[in-house]
Amino acid sequence: MTDQTAVLVGVGAGLGLALVKAFANDGYTVFAGARKASALKELSAAKDERVIPVDVDATDPAQIDDLFAIAEKKAPLAVSIFNAGTFVRSNVVDTSPEAFERCWRTGCFGGFLVARAAARLMLKRSAGTIIFTGATASLRGGAGFVNLASPKFALRAVAQSVARELGPQGIHVAHVIIDGQINAARHAHLTSEREADSLLEPDAIAKAYVALHRQHRSAWTQELDLRPWTEKF
Amino acid sequence: MTDQTAVLVGVGAGLGLALVKAFANDGYTVFAGARKASALKELSAAKDERVIPVDVDATDPAQIDDLFAIAEKKAPLAVSIFNAGTFVRSNVVDTSPEAFERCWRTGCFGGFLVARAAARLMLKRSAGTIIFTGATASLRGGAGFVNLASPKFALRAVAQSVARELGPQGIHVAHVIIDGQINAARHAHLTSEREADSLLEPDAIAKAYVALHRQHRSAWTQELDLRPWTEKF
Amino acid sequence: MTDQTAVLVGVGAGLGLALVKAFANDGYTVFAGARKASALKELSAAKDERVIPVDVDATDPAQIDDLFAIAEKKAPLAVSIFNAGTFVRSNVVDTSPEAFERCWRTGCFGGFLVARAAARLMLKRSAGTIIFTGATASLRGGAGFVNLASPKFALRAVAQSVARELGPQGIHVAHVIIDGQINAARHAHLTSEREADSLLEPDAIAKAYVALHRQHRSAWTQELDLRPWTEKF
Amino acid sequence: MTDQTAVLVGVGAGLGLALVKAFANDGYTVFAGARKASALKELSAAKDERVIPVDVDATDPAQIDDLFAIAEKKAPLAVSIFNAGTFVRSNVVDTSPEAFERCWRTGCFGGFLVARAAARLMLKRSAGTIIFTGATASLRGGAGFVNLASPKFALRAVAQSVARELGPQGIHVAHVIIDGQINAARHAHLTSEREADSLLEPDAIAKAYVALHRQHRSAWTQELDLRPWTEKF
Repeated sequence: MTDQTAVLVGVGAGLGLALVKAFANDGYTVFAGARKASALKELSAAKDERVIPVDVDATDPAQIDDLFAIAEKKAPLAVSIFNAGTFVRSNVVDTSPEAFERCWRTGCFGGFLVARAAARLMLKRSAGTIIFTGATASLRGGAGFVNLASPKFALRAVAQSVARELGPQGIHVAHVIIDGQINAARHAHLTSEREADSLLEPDAIAKAYVALHRQHRSAWTQELDLRPWTEKF
Repeated sequence: MTDQTAVLVGVGAGLGLALVKAFANDGYTVFAGARKASALKELSAAKDERVIPVDVDATDPAQIDDLFAIAEKKAPLAVSIFNAGTFVRSNVVDTSPEAFERCWRTGCFGGFLVARAAARLMLKRSAGTIIFTGATASLRGGAGFVNLASPKFALRAVAQSVARELGPQGIHVAHVIIDGQINAARHAHLTSEREADSLLEPDAIAKAYVALHRQHRSAWTQELDLRPWTEKF
Repeated sequence: MTDQTAVLVGVGAGLGLALVKAFANDGYTVFAGARKASALKELSAAKDERVIPVDVDATDPAQIDDLFAIAEKKAPLAVSIFNAGTFVRSNVVDTSPEAFERCWRTGCFGGFLVARAAARLMLKRSAGTIIFTGATASLRGGAGFVNLASPKFALRAVAQSVARELGPQGIHVAHVIIDGQINAARHAHLTSEREADSLLEPDAIAKAYVALHRQHRSAWTQELDLRPWTEKF
Repeated sequence: MTDQTAVLVGVGAGLGLALVKAFANDGYTVFAGARKASALKELSAAKDERVIPVDVDATDPAQIDDLFAIAEKKAPLAVSIFNAGTFVRSNVVDTSPEAFERCWRTGCFGGFLVARAAARLMLKRSAGTIIFTGATASLRGGAGFVNLASPKFALRAVAQSVARELGPQGIHVAHVIIDGQINAARHAHLTSEREADSLLEPDAIAKAYVALHRQHRSAWTQELDLRPWTEKF
């Protein structure tokens, strides 16, 4: 048990919920920022006093700043995770400027806001961990993926820039490249063993995030990839 | 001489002007989109009938679409170059959401709009070249450079995605990483020879863009770097 | 405690010894391949029955095959780590073909031999972990570093190729990029706290190797970096 | 016409012959190092006095040094190209140490020898161009490709290291990533147009090499890729 808080932004489905659970189990009071009613409902249903669901628009600077202020008021902020993103597959000629902007706003701008708010608090103590969720599209663009790759590349640049700025001030900044499909099944026992671990298990991913947070500052990881054993890459 | 047009967006200083001159010399009618009065004045002063200065806001979808429509009306669009960008160095904690957004809007969103407008016209003929100007910050973030790296990474993702989408349809899409300082001196003869070519010469860069456009489609380059011989990298 | 073995090749100094200790503590019988008399002596002096020092030439196929055969005879091989390398800084014009070849032989060829021997045993059980130690020079060449970068790039290619070949057969292959100077001090308490963790602590690195081995196969890491918080990168 | 020489090592098939022709047409006396009798025969058959076929083992330091000494004796060396390589697809467990070593010796060690010999001559004049032929496998390993990727990665490290060492001394060092299949057909007119340029045309590639050599030193390219318009990447 710690007397510290973690703030997660972008709790939409499997991975977000697993991250909330993992850091709550690690002893943190977790402020779980979500937009989807289903996610907020599921967070509340768990009745875990360590988990505080918050309806937050990750693209609104004031809402993000408020979320972090509330968490810090409860207890010192130790961990901040940005896990949001949205994407609709389309060719560049068919992509509206509005859709392109919306994907950037959710996938990158929100990440900048989260990093900035977290950094301001963590710098007071020269300690803390900021983690960004990336994807295969963080490393390469593809036909039909301009809406995903562009924000994901941009978010990776934020992670690198912030890591180089904050590392020497004691704050660990990491970027996780998730390469493969995440298992969304609620009831993994319904699937065969082989099928199950051909997908990324949310709990296994969350374990890697916790391990990143626990790294000693003499040997910090800035970037790692995660993929299922069966993945072609 | 050709009876085709080139559209350049982001003619602010040395490189933009050199690109305009190079493609005009190569026989294209060049529509040179600029924002700065000084650039527009300099473009007009050249009194080159092959060069048509246009005051355009690269971040406005309607203005970009209009610019390309006007060019295409004059003659078929053969070349499109996105060369815009803006940047103010600052740490992430000191960067306002407005500044972060403005840099993305100029450095990436404008590039998406240009690529989209160019692609729609070029696809009619299954031919044409789209080139994006990148920088060292397209490949790595750095402390104080979040405002530059994030849009530049995002623009590179656009270039890659569009290249993979449009290449097999006959359109050449390339991304040029400019690594080093561009020589802004109007009168290069005022500087010593060694000093002069320790900086990137705009005309030498422009030559590389023309060479990209001339490549045979059996051997297209998607990305190349350009740096002065004295540059540490 | 497990009834399995680990084979480490390239136990020369701080990191090698820390890796041996970490996997022994994790319950493995560790075969520690070394060339330096000092390392072999230190391994013996520890009087840990879980650690078996072996004088081995990592560049000799027969010796590597023998080492793995002996380990497998003792107990099933679960972990294999290649940590060898050698390097003398020199410009390309001053580098003898012999020196260039020697650095490749130690830094890459040995890694191939280790991966091949480990893979042959691990494939029988469709299980096991193979880890390679990389460096900053695995990602970029530099003036004076041709002897280091060339083998390190080559070793990374081995790691990637083997990962893509063996992953779907149940064997986890990872490459660790160590970016910074490793603390070689025996008595860390002699240094100030700040100085101490400005260098990579061998025990902190070793912890990351153990964590890689423990990852669930639904979320394996192929590559991660490790650097001290104070490192410029 | 120039009164300078070019040395090419690795003239085995389509691309090598096209490079020889391109630099001869550009006015250089080209020393064309080859191993295959067929290539040597074809070079002789062309009866171009600007082309001098040389039977050379690229992996023998003395033969490489001799080749460059002979070229320099004829006229100052201006261009050096390393284009050799060999590869047999096989899994790591099936790859003999001899095969792995042979592929490195031809694909990387030879490149080092060529760069070293060229650099020694070019440094006398602080001028010249050294180009290495890379491949998709220079950037990523793959199952069954350990024998190709490992030397190609290693060669790229040589190119980068030598570029950073020799650039500031006036020597241009570039690495070309050839991504796709090269058209080996002697009589391109036998194939349909679409088929023909779905493959990389040797003459189109050679043109890019000549363009690299001609770049002004204020804007040098260190790396570029070349692929056919239809290539998935």
